[in-house]
Amino acid sequence: MALPRLLVRALHRAAAAAAPAAPDFNSFVTRTNTCGELRAAHVGQKVTLYGWVQYQRQGLFLVLRDFQGLTQVIIPQDEKMPTGDIEVKAETAEILNSCKKLPFEIKDFIKKSEALRMQYRYLDLRSSRLQWALRLRSRVVMRMREYLCNLHGFVDVETPTLFKRTPGGAKEFLVPSREAGKFYSLPQSPQQFKQLLMVGGLDRYFQVARCYRDEGSRPDRQPEFTQIDIEMSFIDQAGIQRLIEGLLQHSWPEERGSIVTPFPSMTYEEALAEYGTDKPDTRFGMKIVDVSEVLRGSNIHFVQNALSYPHGSIRAICIPQGVRYLTNKDLGSLKESAKSQFNQEIMEIICRPDGSLKSLLTKFLSEKEQSELIQALNMQEGDVVLLAAGEHKQVCSALGALRLLSANLLEAAGLALRDPTAFHFLWVVDFPLFFPKAENPTELESAHHPFTAPHPSDVSLLYSDPTKVRSQHYDLVLNGNEVGGGSIRIHSAEQQRFVLEKVLKEDSEVLSHLIEALEFGAPPHGGIALGLDRLISLIVDAPSIRDVIAFPKSFRGRDLMGNAPDYVTPEELEPYHIQVSWPLEEKEAKKN
Amino acid sequence: MALPRLLVRALHRAAAAAAPAAPDFNSFVTRTNTCGELRAAHVGQKVTLYGWVQYQRQGLFLVLRDFQGLTQVIIPQDEKMPTGDIEVKAETAEILNSCKKLPFEIKDFIKKSEALRMQYRYLDLRSSRLQWALRLRSRVVMRMREYLCNLHGFVDVETPTLFKRTPGGAKEFLVPSREAGKFYSLPQSPQQFKQLLMVGGLDRYFQVARCYRDEGSRPDRQPEFTQIDIEMSFIDQAGIQRLIEGLLQHSWPEERGSIVTPFPSMTYEEALAEYGTDKPDTRFGMKIVDVSEVLRGSNIHFVQNALSYPHGSIRAICIPQGVRYLTNKDLGSLKESAKSQFNQEIMEIICRPDGSLKSLLTKFLSEKEQSELIQALNMQEGDVVLLAAGEHKQVCSALGALRLLSANLLEAAGLALRDPTAFHFLWVVDFPLFFPKAENPTELESAHHPFTAPHPSDVSLLYSDPTKVRSQHYDLVLNGNEVGGGSIRIHSAEQQRFVLEKVLKEDSEVLSHLIEALEFGAPPHGGIALGLDRLISLIVDAPSIRDVIAFPKSFRGRDLMGNAPDYVTPEELEPYHIQVSWPLEEKEAKKN
Repeated sequence: MALPRLLVRALHRAAAAAAPAAPDFNSFVTRTNTCGELRAAHVGQKVTLYGWVQYQRQGLFLVLRDFQGLTQVIIPQDEKMPTGDIEVKAETAEILNSCKKLPFEIKDFIKKSEALRMQYRYLDLRSSRLQWALRLRSRVVMRMREYLCNLHGFVDVETPTLFKRTPGGAKEFLVPSREAGKFYSLPQSPQQFKQLLMVGGLDRYFQVARCYRDEGSRPDRQPEFTQIDIEMSFIDQAGIQRLIEGLLQHSWPEERGSIVTPFPSMTYEEALAEYGTDKPDTRFGMKIVDVSEVLRGSNIHFVQNALSYPHGSIRAICIPQGVRYLTNKDLGSLKESAKSQFNQEIMEIICRPDGSLKSLLTKFLSEKEQSELIQALNMQEGDVVLLAAGEHKQVCSALGALRLLSANLLEAAGLALRDPTAFHFLWVVDFPLFFPKAENPTELESAHHPFTAPHPSDVSLLYSDPTKVRSQHYDLVLNGNEVGGGSIRIHSAEQQRFVLEKVLKEDSEVLSHLIEALEFGAPPHGGIALGLDRLISLIVDAPSIRDVIAFPKSFRGRDLMGNAPDYVTPEELEPYHIQVSWPLEEKEAKKN
Repeated sequence: MALPRLLVRALHRAAAAAAPAAPDFNSFVTRTNTCGELRAAHVGQKVTLYGWVQYQRQGLFLVLRDFQGLTQVIIPQDEKMPTGDIEVKAETAEILNSCKKLPFEIKDFIKKSEALRMQYRYLDLRSSRLQWALRLRSRVVMRMREYLCNLHGFVDVETPTLFKRTPGGAKEFLVPSREAGKFYSLPQSPQQFKQLLMVGGLDRYFQVARCYRDEGSRPDRQPEFTQIDIEMSFIDQAGIQRLIEGLLQHSWPEERGSIVTPFPSMTYEEALAEYGTDKPDTRFGMKIVDVSEVLRGSNIHFVQNALSYPHGSIRAICIPQGVRYLTNKDLGSLKESAKSQFNQEIMEIICRPDGSLKSLLTKFLSEKEQSELIQALNMQEGDVVLLAAGEHKQVCSALGALRLLSANLLEAAGLALRDPTAFHFLWVVDFPLFFPKAENPTELESAHHPFTAPHPSDVSLLYSDPTKVRSQHYDLVLNGNEVGGGSIRIHSAEQQRFVLEKVLKEDSEVLSHLIEALEFGAPPHGGIALGLDRLISLIVDAPSIRDVIAFPKSFRGRDLMGNAPDYVTPEELEPYHIQVSWPLEEKEAKKN
């Protein structure tokens, strides 16, 4: 750490460059320039730099580092001439602090374990990778704010994070209060508040909202995370979509190219049928193809069996050049994965160099059927097809998972499948409003949340056949990741009460304040939330959301730097009227 | 709630007004104008408005309200002509939702209890008062962001709110984790993180930070609140002050006039001596005057007694026109208050219409002494002087409190003392670094927090006489309210360890990560935090910070709308390994 008062030394002189309209990093301090700023145009000027000593050699020269870059500083001796247009000749230099041996060097190419990086997070933050990610994040959010507030009249409203447990809010952290037995809850989103703001006539709300979710140990999830939270009155689905497209276009960082709007849109049914998921990665093909009709006439037992059920279906994906890029072990693991995760058998068909098919199936298929299959799947020589028969949703989900696994395998083997600089946004719409509960399919649960409005065309079905009702929910997908979701909300108290009490069989009492609010002239309204951590991690191409969060928790929810969570004394628990129920073995251990 | 498709009706035609560079409130929706927008220039245009029906009369006309204003809508009958330049002739109108009888009318002049307003907060939010406050708050914060990010290169970094208990953090809420006995803590400020960001080379950090403080029931405090949190590397006290002055000037709302910079500055000692507080209200005079020297020669026992002590002092304030504006009861209550709050006797001196003094003291004072007293206090006919003798700090504190109480009494009685539109900012500097602990004056505690750096001139005193060390802490005061505070921090690990271990006798182990960080080349750094809720409440002249928070808690920390905190079931506590320790009487009640 040094503060050299320095003189820029001339190698050759050049005209002063035009100053860019950048922020002034040197206001309020005695610094004249950052370490990334000096150019030939500054030759001859006196400058004051602050930074960390990155290298130094025998008291002859040193390289000073800050968040913007590196500058070489000569400690005047003889007239030595290193490379580079500029070097700074030290007039005075002051050491402001010393530095003990670092646990790892601040260089991007030095490999270090994530646990070590998280323990010394303040050192990892000095890396150009994290500096870039955090500064880009700040910049993107600022431009989002400008778009929403300055251009479109949104009001940034802060909503409480100490609230009460929502029904079924099993993933909400609790905060004991000083009233015995009473707890606050840290909400998973400002959902209720944003709707109440619309009832309150705020018209257009947004917030960069801190949200909380206690999921125990989950890789790449954080107990606290951030969403861009938006709600508007008198808006429809298309309006929200245009808003978000404009928002992303406006805030997109220049160094990541530009994005094209409007984003394509796909129904939930289409996404499931073609990609086997509600968050399709549309950067590559290998779509799921329905071959039920091709095989319907064949004399294959499992095919006939599958098609005899109401939702029976035969589907397949075609892996381009699978013969070349996938090993037998790869194919085995793909089939194994479908079996273990989806209980789905997979049949394999290979297109030989001569164009003929190799498979256990071929002997049951006529030449016409084989040729129709090749055509339906657009099979080329060397391609591998994975085929599944069974219930529609199961078949699609299994093939969707295999599609992604094979893409990873192909890329690992050297096939350039997905453009790493491409950003494919996609709207997924027309979700079902309700799903049957996994544990008891005769009961229904909300596909998203109970405030989602039914699709206008399906309102009457709500009262006759709620399973058939599509919702006005929409998801925003980027490169196969869900980066946002929202809906038009129910604004009729009567409809909201019907959904809660009659369809979901829930006790509406805990939401009585919200239902009552709808009775007081609630405007039609809708909104969306973007997952900021995920979005930024995709923009900077980071492997984890932990790489775009300044002080992330480990996947066990621990802060490895400060050691949180931690034990507290029984006295500290007293004002909150709680005590620890030690698990039996720890209790025993304490006794002894 | 109605959506009328309407035709603006001509009363007289006018040229189209130039569009202001305001945000577009009508983007993405089918609205063409808000209800506050239509002017004579719009005559003849077709418009679509959305809003709430404020009045309606016999199906003849209605007044539509939204966040921007009111517009009169005529339901065409005959050619009726009400006042106003514009009325909208309804072509179609659609009722989007109905409204049951409101618990109170949405009119600012209707008085309602705060409990009722908080229970129906979403209705209170419709008031023009709250709409203005929340929208102004959003606008001010946006301009602060523009100033910090766009003009001065700050990085908006989000820091965790699930952290671990800080030593002595008795006011921190606890959050049980799934590890038995381990708790997160909701921090009172991002203090540690902001310093670690400087160690991490972020250079200039800011955040609109949610902070938490569990103080039980306190009027006009909130369990969660917001601060504008700032930290900079390589900065000194003057630099931070200029930054904040620029920030406030840049973000100051036009409708509240403008503010003058630089702000005046006062040392802690001066503030205490002249105003009896570290947050002087400098909008009016009535300063505390030292009359020790005037009275030193007098033969008054309590005066002589006070002056015989090392910190003994005789001080007074002069209440202008106190004879006219203060009743005997007022004067009695002022003296009573000094007695009960500060154990301080107060002597009263009245300046008669003829300029002579009336007081129990006068018979002990020579004419010269009386005249010197009149001069020192600048007494005019009809003024009332309150005089106190005793220990310096106690005398000043008591008179400081009386100064504010008398100002309120004078104003209540009709004297215009403080300009309600004036904003008097003030820096208070040179605080002591440590105070003796109230419960044990031989031990020291930090006046602010243990990371505050000593004043550069007093560093050597740290090791010899720490009570004499001034700090590099600074408070920002507005109209007698503390609206911000910060300091230059200790950046030497050795000095930080000395302060924690040797001066404060604290266990530095819990802060080992911070001290270790200082060892890794921490730059000199400092920062500040502005209390946003308080600042905005002063700007909009609201009686409470609850009036600038969308969903505030009651002074008991309760959300009266959603009923938080609330009971949870023992099953919900199970994953967190805690159980409620019911107070004895409630336990007994449960048994029976």
